[in-house]
Parts: sequence; structure tokens; C-alpha cells
Amino acid sequence: MDEFALIQQYFSGIGTPSQQVVLGIGDDCALLAGHTGEQLALSVDTSLPDRHFPAQADPWAIGWRALSVAFSDLSAMAAEPVGFTLALSLPEQDPAWLQAFSQGLRAFAEAQSCPLIGGDTTRGPLAISVQVIGRAPAHRVWRRQGAQAGDLIAVLGDLGAAYAGLQSLLGDPELARDRHQWGAVEQAYMLPESRMQEALRLRDQVPVTACIDISDGLLADCQHLLAASAVAAELDLAALPIHPWLKHHWTPEQQLDAACEGGDDYALLLTLPATAWPRAHQLCPHLTIIGRCVAGAGMRNQAGAPLAPRGFKHF
Amino acid sequence: MDEFALIQQYFSGIGTPSQQVVLGIGDDCALLAGHTGEQLALSVDTSLPDRHFPAQADPWAIGWRALSVAFSDLSAMAAEPVGFTLALSLPEQDPAWLQAFSQGLRAFAEAQSCPLIGGDTTRGPLAISVQVIGRAPAHRVWRRQGAQAGDLIAVLGDLGAAYAGLQSLLGDPELARDRHQWGAVEQAYMLPESRMQEALRLRDQVPVTACIDISDGLLADCQHLLAASAVAAELDLAALPIHPWLKHHWTPEQQLDAACEGGDDYALLLTLPATAWPRAHQLCPHLTIIGRCVAGAGMRNQAGAPLAPRGFKHF
Repeated sequence: MDEFALIQQYFSGIGTPSQQVVLGIGDDCALLAGHTGEQLALSVDTSLPDRHFPAQADPWAIGWRALSVAFSDLSAMAAEPVGFTLALSLPEQDPAWLQAFSQGLRAFAEAQSCPLIGGDTTRGPLAISVQVIGRAPAHRVWRRQGAQAGDLIAVLGDLGAAYAGLQSLLGDPELARDRHQWGAVEQAYMLPESRMQEALRLRDQVPVTACIDISDGLLADCQHLLAASAVAAELDLAALPIHPWLKHHWTPEQQLDAACEGGDDYALLLTLPATAWPRAHQLCPHLTIIGRCVAGAGMRNQAGAPLAPRGFKHF
Repeated sequence: MDEFALIQQYFSGIGTPSQQVVLGIGDDCALLAGHTGEQLALSVDTSLPDRHFPAQADPWAIGWRALSVAFSDLSAMAAEPVGFTLALSLPEQDPAWLQAFSQGLRAFAEAQSCPLIGGDTTRGPLAISVQVIGRAPAHRVWRRQGAQAGDLIAVLGDLGAAYAGLQSLLGDPELARDRHQWGAVEQAYMLPESRMQEALRLRDQVPVTACIDISDGLLADCQHLLAASAVAAELDLAALPIHPWLKHHWTPEQQLDAACEGGDDYALLLTLPATAWPRAHQLCPHLTIIGRCVAGAGMRNQAGAPLAPRGFKHF
């Protein structure tokens, strides 16, 4: 049973929805009614050793990454940061590890103006759960639902580099220990960058109709967005914004695999009316059109062949 | 280094406080500005096997307990529930375990009208992080800070039973497996009851000046409240609301130890002006006066002898 089936079977419909809950389980964040005209967005992400990062990885990067991947869910809803909480289980107290971990967390938090507002520390196997809280005008928050037939599908950011970085880190455990030795792809995996500023620019000036962050892989996450919006997609795989490193080092087939299935890039996948494209592209030069929404269900390429995620495991 | 020192050294002042954050680290919940005149309260609590519950314990009770202990932080702020998120790491998928766990979680959530609004499930060592979200009128939310010299100190709930229950469960691992075999003390440890309804009654009708939930032990948590409020306390240890089971089975010395140091009862410790007592006691018959606030710092008994927590380990 995968994560989605497990949630559906055991954890759906727990408790009576209160009036303040605008959106519950099933999107990048839950939404709560906030200030008049505003909604609060909440999301939680757990990072575990040898599942989400190499256990021996540079602790500074572990801190950065744990906050960054949770924060990506706020970017995907175009909700600006309010703060975050940290539930941290630690097997032992290693002052050097803790110092570096907290500095990495702090670096991301300060760069993104997202303060730590609470938490819980316990003795136990290493586990890092980060809950992020953001806010957005109620009529401008982005959801997975909302894409319309005819909308363009675009990606904000590069694809494939994180997958390449993970392969590199898994192949050379010593490399993982020191972030100063990393090249572009190792950085892409361990130190994903925030798309928040671009998301907020778009939110305030472009009628984006739906959005999701690409954590599980382009095809898997695209499928989530399409299902929530009840539309189909025609994708131009030749147009994918593949990271330049892959173009120089990998075969076209490997590039496509990494971009479609690799995940962990934390790029944003979003949809918007074609008329909004010029303004969107002006605001975000790194936005790339990769297809368009059509009536129906599922995904296909430009030749009409069906596309589906293979359910690739990332770690 | 204990939890408080660790947070202070590594995790204080991370990120620039945003305008919306009314209260950050250091109380039972963080507070955010919400609807006009309202504040949102957030808290996170992690539950780990053989640290917060016996690993082989009845999974129904593990679910109930994980939510109940997090929920207690909302009660301590008198913030009515909005919802909760769940970050769940599971070593393997055992459908019977998951079914019972989710039913226990659901039972508490439905009894308290606190819906599950989001979460994250991962494969890893069992870890349950629950984040609760509540709300309260901004001028009525309870904090640890606010107790004044002259205020009465009261406990809402019984003390000591959870400690006795834990000893019983640790002494008989088979007993932990089936909640139907438990008596009052095992239930007190594994199935702590919510104080929310009494807290909300008090909040709306009585000027409570400060509150904390008793998770670490009466003396330890009283010390936190006094330090935040910058007052001292004179406690009448003969007046403690010791659970009836202990009075029948344990020596007076053991009773006092369990009540003062045991923790895990999730009773509420609160302060209020003496003039408010008749109304408070009418609203909550299970409220017990155990002392009063005086100028200065620290705790002493009625004979003037200093009192301090011994820093007891609960598990």
C-alpha cells in the first residue's frame, strides 16, 4: 500500500471538520481561515536518515534541506511564510552535529524570513519533522485543483539535477560529509532552493489556476494536479527544462528519465491561461512551458501516446 | 544538557520574527494573530516507543495518547481546537496495528471535535509527531506568564495516577497489550483525559492569570510557570489532589513523590485571584487549591522549607 492509499484507508475523515478549516488533507498544505480575507496554510514534512538524506551527510545541509522541503509546500500554495515548528528526535547529543544542523536551519530560515516558533525535542532515532505555516489572500491561494482545459502547463525551475545528485552521493559516501566538496547536482539534491519569491511575484500579478511542487517526480505530481483539477494533459517532453549538467553528462534517455521520474527537485508545476503567459514569463524568466491542459483524464505526449509515472523509489 | 538548555543553545532566535507571531518558543503553544481579535495557538509533541509509551502497548491507546498529550497544550492555553496534523513514521505496515492506532486517534479527535487536516507518512522507526492548532480570543488566551503575588494556585485534575500506571505497565509488559485489562492507573497513563471543556468554561467566566499543563511533574511545571511570571509560590503539599487509587495502595511518602515528581497526568496548573475562586469552583468542582503566589522566586512549603523538582526521568 502506498502513502496515498494508506492515508485514504486509515486517516481520512478523522474528526468533525471545524468551520475554520477551509481545506483539509489532499493538497500541498491545509488551509485555515485567518485574518479577514486571508487564509493560513499548514504543512508538515518528516526527514529521515538514509531515506531523505544520507545518514552521514553534512549536518548543515540536513538542517537546510529539512526546512527547505517543507517550505516548498508553502511555495506551491503561494503562501508567504509566517513561521515553522520543529519536532526533533535525536539519538545522542553531538554538539558539533547539532551546531551545524541548527546553523543550516537558521541560514534557510533567515534567508526566507521564516522564524522558528515552537517545537519538541526527544531522545530517539534521528527524525526531523518540520511544520510550516504561511498565509495568503484567500482569493489568490494556489491549489492543485483549478486547472482548465486550454491552460498552459509550466515548470518553474530545472529538472533532473537532484536525482543525479542523489546517485552521486549514494555512490560516494565520503562526498556526502562535506558540502564544500559538492558540485551543482549534489547541491540540487541536498540544498534545494526556494521558489517562494517567484511564486509570490506570480501570485500577485498572474492568474495561476493550479500548482503543485515536484517532489515525487514530474509525471507523478502532474498526475496529482490533473486528478484534482479533473483535466488531462498533453506534454511536450522535448521542452522539459533539463538541468544543464545532465545535458553534458548523460544520454538523452537518462536525462528524460531523471526529469520525469526523479523527483526531489522541488521545482513548481503550475497552470495558467495562455493569455497570461507573456506577463508570467516577464516576471519569471526561468518559467518553461511544457504542455497544455486538455479535456479528459490522464497524460499523453504530443504523438498521443499515454504517459504514466513508473512509481520510481527515490532513495 | 537537558531539553531546555539544548533549545536555548541551538534553536533560539532562528529567523526574523514576523509580525504575525504573537508568541514564539517558550510556552505551551506558539501564538499567531488570527481573525480580528483572535489568536491561533500551535504546539507539536512527538511520541516514541519505550520513551513515551511501551512499544508493545495497545495501538488504539497509542493513537489516543499521542493526540491527547499534544492536545493538552491547547487546553493549557485555553485555545479551542481547530485541527491537527500528523507526521507518522512507520517501520512496516501492519494493517491490524494501523487500524487500531487510527481508531484510537479518531476516537479522541471526534470526542474533542479536532479534525485531522494534514500530515506526512514515511517509512522509518516508529515516531508520531502531532501538531495541534487551536484558537482563542486574544485577550483571554492563557500563558505561563501572568501570575501575580496573592493569586491562588490550583490544580485541575488528579495527580500521581499516571506515574503509578507507568510503573504497572513497565512491570508487566503483557498487560500493556490490551487496554481492556487496564485499571484506573494504567488508563491514567495511557489514556489521559482532556481538560479542554473545563478550561474553556473557566476561560470565558474566570480571570485565570496563568496556566501550564503538568507533563513533567507538578514541581517542575510549577517552576516553569513561576519563572515566566516572576513570582514565588507557597505550596500546601497536604492539599494536593492525589488520585484515590494511590491513597489506598501507596504510602504517604510514595503518594507525595508520585504527585510532585511523576508527571504525565496532564492535569492543569493555574493561578487566579482569590476573589475569583467561588465562581471557578462552581464551574469546575474538580479544581483544588494547592497554594498561593507570593513575591520572590522559587517554591517553598508552608513551613518555609524550599521545594525543587529532582529532575525525575519518567520512562
